[in-house]
Amino acid sequence: MSSVFGKQLKVSTFGESHGPALGVLVDGLPAGLLIDQKRIQREMDRRRPGGSAMVSARKEADQVEILSGVSQGKSLGSPIALLVRNKNARSKDYRDLAEVFRPGHADFTYFQKYGIPPQPGGGRASGRETAARVAAGALARALLEPMGIAFFSCTVAVGGIKARKIDYEFSHTDPLHAADPDLARAMGEKVLAAREKGDSVGGVVQVEVRGAPAGWGDPVFDKLDAALAGAWFSIGGVKGVEIGSGFEAAARLGSENNDQMDENGFLSNHAGGILGGISSGQSLLARLAVKPTPSISRPQSTRDLSGRQREIEIKGRHDPCLCPRVGPVAEAMAALVLADACLCQRALQGESR
Amino acid sequence: MSSVFGKQLKVSTFGESHGPALGVLVDGLPAGLLIDQKRIQREMDRRRPGGSAMVSARKEADQVEILSGVSQGKSLGSPIALLVRNKNARSKDYRDLAEVFRPGHADFTYFQKYGIPPQPGGGRASGRETAARVAAGALARALLEPMGIAFFSCTVAVGGIKARKIDYEFSHTDPLHAADPDLARAMGEKVLAAREKGDSVGGVVQVEVRGAPAGWGDPVFDKLDAALAGAWFSIGGVKGVEIGSGFEAAARLGSENNDQMDENGFLSNHAGGILGGISSGQSLLARLAVKPTPSISRPQSTRDLSGRQREIEIKGRHDPCLCPRVGPVAEAMAALVLADACLCQRALQGESR
Amino acid sequence: MSSVFGKQLKVSTFGESHGPALGVLVDGLPAGLLIDQKRIQREMDRRRPGGSAMVSARKEADQVEILSGVSQGKSLGSPIALLVRNKNARSKDYRDLAEVFRPGHADFTYFQKYGIPPQPGGGRASGRETAARVAAGALARALLEPMGIAFFSCTVAVGGIKARKIDYEFSHTDPLHAADPDLARAMGEKVLAAREKGDSVGGVVQVEVRGAPAGWGDPVFDKLDAALAGAWFSIGGVKGVEIGSGFEAAARLGSENNDQMDENGFLSNHAGGILGGISSGQSLLARLAVKPTPSISRPQSTRDLSGRQREIEIKGRHDPCLCPRVGPVAEAMAALVLADACLCQRALQGESR
Amino acid sequence: MSSVFGKQLKVSTFGESHGPALGVLVDGLPAGLLIDQKRIQREMDRRRPGGSAMVSARKEADQVEILSGVSQGKSLGSPIALLVRNKNARSKDYRDLAEVFRPGHADFTYFQKYGIPPQPGGGRASGRETAARVAAGALARALLEPMGIAFFSCTVAVGGIKARKIDYEFSHTDPLHAADPDLARAMGEKVLAAREKGDSVGGVVQVEVRGAPAGWGDPVFDKLDAALAGAWFSIGGVKGVEIGSGFEAAARLGSENNDQMDENGFLSNHAGGILGGISSGQSLLARLAVKPTPSISRPQSTRDLSGRQREIEIKGRHDPCLCPRVGPVAEAMAALVLADACLCQRALQGESR
Repeated sequence: MSSVFGKQLKVSTFGESHGPALGVLVDGLPAGLLIDQKRIQREMDRRRPGGSAMVSARKEADQVEILSGVSQGKSLGSPIALLVRNKNARSKDYRDLAEVFRPGHADFTYFQKYGIPPQPGGGRASGRETAARVAAGALARALLEPMGIAFFSCTVAVGGIKARKIDYEFSHTDPLHAADPDLARAMGEKVLAAREKGDSVGGVVQVEVRGAPAGWGDPVFDKLDAALAGAWFSIGGVKGVEIGSGFEAAARLGSENNDQMDENGFLSNHAGGILGGISSGQSLLARLAVKPTPSISRPQSTRDLSGRQREIEIKGRHDPCLCPRVGPVAEAMAALVLADACLCQRALQGESR
Repeated sequence: MSSVFGKQLKVSTFGESHGPALGVLVDGLPAGLLIDQKRIQREMDRRRPGGSAMVSARKEADQVEILSGVSQGKSLGSPIALLVRNKNARSKDYRDLAEVFRPGHADFTYFQKYGIPPQPGGGRASGRETAARVAAGALARALLEPMGIAFFSCTVAVGGIKARKIDYEFSHTDPLHAADPDLARAMGEKVLAAREKGDSVGGVVQVEVRGAPAGWGDPVFDKLDAALAGAWFSIGGVKGVEIGSGFEAAARLGSENNDQMDENGFLSNHAGGILGGISSGQSLLARLAVKPTPSISRPQSTRDLSGRQREIEIKGRHDPCLCPRVGPVAEAMAALVLADACLCQRALQGESR
Repeated sequence: MSSVFGKQLKVSTFGESHGPALGVLVDGLPAGLLIDQKRIQREMDRRRPGGSAMVSARKEADQVEILSGVSQGKSLGSPIALLVRNKNARSKDYRDLAEVFRPGHADFTYFQKYGIPPQPGGGRASGRETAARVAAGALARALLEPMGIAFFSCTVAVGGIKARKIDYEFSHTDPLHAADPDLARAMGEKVLAAREKGDSVGGVVQVEVRGAPAGWGDPVFDKLDAALAGAWFSIGGVKGVEIGSGFEAAARLGSENNDQMDENGFLSNHAGGILGGISSGQSLLARLAVKPTPSISRPQSTRDLSGRQREIEIKGRHDPCLCPRVGPVAEAMAALVLADACLCQRALQGESR
Repeated sequence: MSSVFGKQLKVSTFGESHGPALGVLVDGLPAGLLIDQKRIQREMDRRRPGGSAMVSARKEADQVEILSGVSQGKSLGSPIALLVRNKNARSKDYRDLAEVFRPGHADFTYFQKYGIPPQPGGGRASGRETAARVAAGALARALLEPMGIAFFSCTVAVGGIKARKIDYEFSHTDPLHAADPDLARAMGEKVLAAREKGDSVGGVVQVEVRGAPAGWGDPVFDKLDAALAGAWFSIGGVKGVEIGSGFEAAARLGSENNDQMDENGFLSNHAGGILGGISSGQSLLARLAVKPTPSISRPQSTRDLSGRQREIEIKGRHDPCLCPRVGPVAEAMAALVLADACLCQRALQGESR
């Protein structure tokens, strides 16, 4: 039951890093939505590796095939299946690793859970799985964007360097998706310096959703912030999520942190657009802590399947900083959570014939 | 679908702050577990208000009645329903508030979602709902504690003062559940100073789970960290969650952040006990950012149901700092997530007759 | 996960036959529905035992207490919890039975599943659990009846005697809920004759739903007929379900069985109001095969917990024919299935703000 | 949410009759199961059209491609995706039908639900969707068959002719899967006679499962019989399900219908292997009423999209009797229900490490 997501909108992904294909099934979208293959592809390209020295050199066209649920450019109401073939898997990079647990990876815990040895490329635990999420997110956008809802993300910290301003426009042009034009270069140099030493760096990704109406999300366990936080923590490498003022709120007084209102609306947005688990109509604002890529080529101590201590140096094609890849995935997860919340709210508000 | 939680273990809570009762249904526990009413009550007492100047003066005995699913002190395998009657609701405190949206509360968003005016005590959005979660958590403990799994929580920051050491033993005796004996007094004074001015303060709660075996949690969307983060964000007032090194990981190199192993196991625990969404056998470690209580008696600007600007001063009995109440609830949610993960893992590993 | 039902509307029941109480939680109904306690009670009274020689003599007032989710006669949108206290449990009737498996009952299979000995009154497997379903069904009716949807049931066969006409009006006045005024007396005599010999008889219950619009239900696994059939088979004693022409369709030609249309609509209703799993706007029509009550006082061979052969004669207060009790429960389940389908369809069709 | 099935084992199908492909995702199977592609293909071949005059002439090789979740012939524990390309779709047969609702089909109700015109081949409502279920069923068998559980089905009635004996062995060799060697010829002639007149006939399919242990299935809503009945009613054309003595039980006395026991076990199996919704260890026995194929070439009255009366004669390649195709699908659904029940029971019974 690990790969199914959502309540009204059911999203199921499949595929291993070095298997024949990845894909996703999205069930529950209304009929009649415009599904534009090029729009899906554009999202895939934003997540795609191979673009710069900042990301993995694995070359994947990530061409999406629509297998079902769409006819003549419109959704039919039936499940939409999207398929992405794996083309550039290089399992030989992993041949030496089949017996050892890579530090910071899921090799050890998958072995404990399933009793299977480390799979090439991490198998199901690979970041490659997120390609399927981005494809699904593009379908969720087909529901939400016509309602005026827009998604943004950028890298607001890398290796300790923190952005002082947010420029989404600029971030699209930066290989790290850096938010701050004045610090983008310093961030890039931090990443390259680590890369040269066979190391990697962590960072912080900001996500923003504009235009979501008030009233979405459910009380108690299915709060909108709970759903979003769960969705973002499901992205490999995310170790922290804060919404609105987040950890800063912990140091504040109530009189500083409450968002007061007047007849024109809210006077601030410390809540990050969510009150009591339900959207307030303000922008949704969050930050995700992303750990440094665990695949590094520096020597590390680890264990093998038989329990013996071993030294490992990981070769292969790895992102020295995960942030520019996490951003598009985080947007996709936000789109899936909001599309689900939208459909659930329709169930409560709607009239049926 | 907002109040149902879990996959194999289904937990459903009900009840409004000023309604006749609160309660919870827990479905999916195995038969034969020892269910000790006193053990449930002890957990309830840890969360219960009325203990000190640090928490609300609302007096509730929070006596739990077991309505079903238990016979002769043992679970039957059928759903266990637990009931807590509301005794000390003082709706008159809220009479003046029925027309205005309290800043930082769910009044506005519930009105947008359901079209209902602010309910006395916040209705379903009240922190009182968490009494039901704590009762459910006590049932989850009945499954987990005999396996050697133990839960801890404490307050590690209040209003900017941060604990420098963690002493769970001490925290049990402190009205704020402060972690650090040397700073507990300063923290308490911070809270009382705010309270005297009709204000409130935020803080940070740490949660730790010891003894959970490796292999629990599911890949992709149902990762253990995703489930825990979602569960903790479902607690009112939580604005941030970090697991393991959390936001600090964002400033580190891979070579610093990876947990290396040798033949005796892990050499560090930056991951917080979870790798690839699956427990590693190490302690689960997390911190929750808790916002300052939104109910303050200082004058605030807000709106009423008709959209007019209004000034509000909130009377009533409120916690000046939520942290000591969040801790036991956060433990309960962790217990529910782990019990669910335990049963799901049994489904994969087990032999059936 | 055994006691949770529905997708958008989550219904959870709890309670054992001889425990303190039964109850149900209904989560997902919109806010603002009129919830009339008397209307709920009227449904409870239709199912209630103690009415005539045709049904069990167990006396239960079945007074429903609303614990949450309703304020000033209207739903709040939060979970509605309904409680029914058990008053007339006579466990001593069952004292001798704690060691033996009653034939035709769940004692043996529950022992195999849970390892628990036979519980007084059947424990969770008692027909008494259906009181909670009827209460929940009354809430579903609060959504559906204002839309013009109405529910009917009657007994169309008993011990081989088959009704030749259907008179719902008459059936309300008949202790067996017999459909055919001309045969009601013969049916009643059949039941009493069996009862005098310590035996019981089976029968067939018809259920009809009028006024449901076209378009409800989902393709593939959540077809409306699949949901209804599953819901009806979940009622103890039901061994068969047919919809529309049912088993008669198996003997027909396509040209006889298809429902043709003209510009005014359908020319027949062999489908029973469902095509491809989706409601057609015609009446939903179904029949349920109900086995004879397994509790009989004639001597039967069985086993005890230790595996030894034993003879058993079941005393206590039992319905000699289950049909008049199954009817109201079958209506309640139909109401729950349709309310769920209604909300799911609103999610697809609705506009959100 | 229409195409997702199961609790612990999540099964999601996708694909339209004339789209590029059909497929299924199965999530939740344990790691280490032997997954034999040839075994899957054998099941596909049993359901496959094109074999005889009794079934549709549409030629589909139904070659299954395994896209994920399997490595070196063993399950990995991750979701298994299976793909079947559509090769022989002849949409031109349906060109004239795009404006009219075929009687007995889902065209009208899909139009009411989704607002889409009739799709070629019935789109998602096509019997072709069941290919994906059979593929999924083969995976469920990989879990169950090593435990000694075996599945059988045969045609026990066609157009009013009822089998007097059950010979599964023989049924494998008969084009109608007829159960009774003495009546197979008469049944076949009945079908061919209907076919010559452009008509079709209904029938009854029996399903049997041997070797399932006692204790599977859940009380109340997720009873094993409820799950099976729902699963079978989800197969297009099924209008009735009876388990054990089924509708015959309605005419019996309790003393005739109860299955008594002695120290060696049950003395009869009127219950069909299920008591109180839980398997008893006896064979599971059920019969499914299958309506005559709605696609007939005889002239019928219907409506078009604009509401006008129209006459229709359906050309194309259709099964004159659905029974031999329903059998393998019904077995597959039983396998999926039992695999889910098996995993749920392991969750309750199992020890975790």
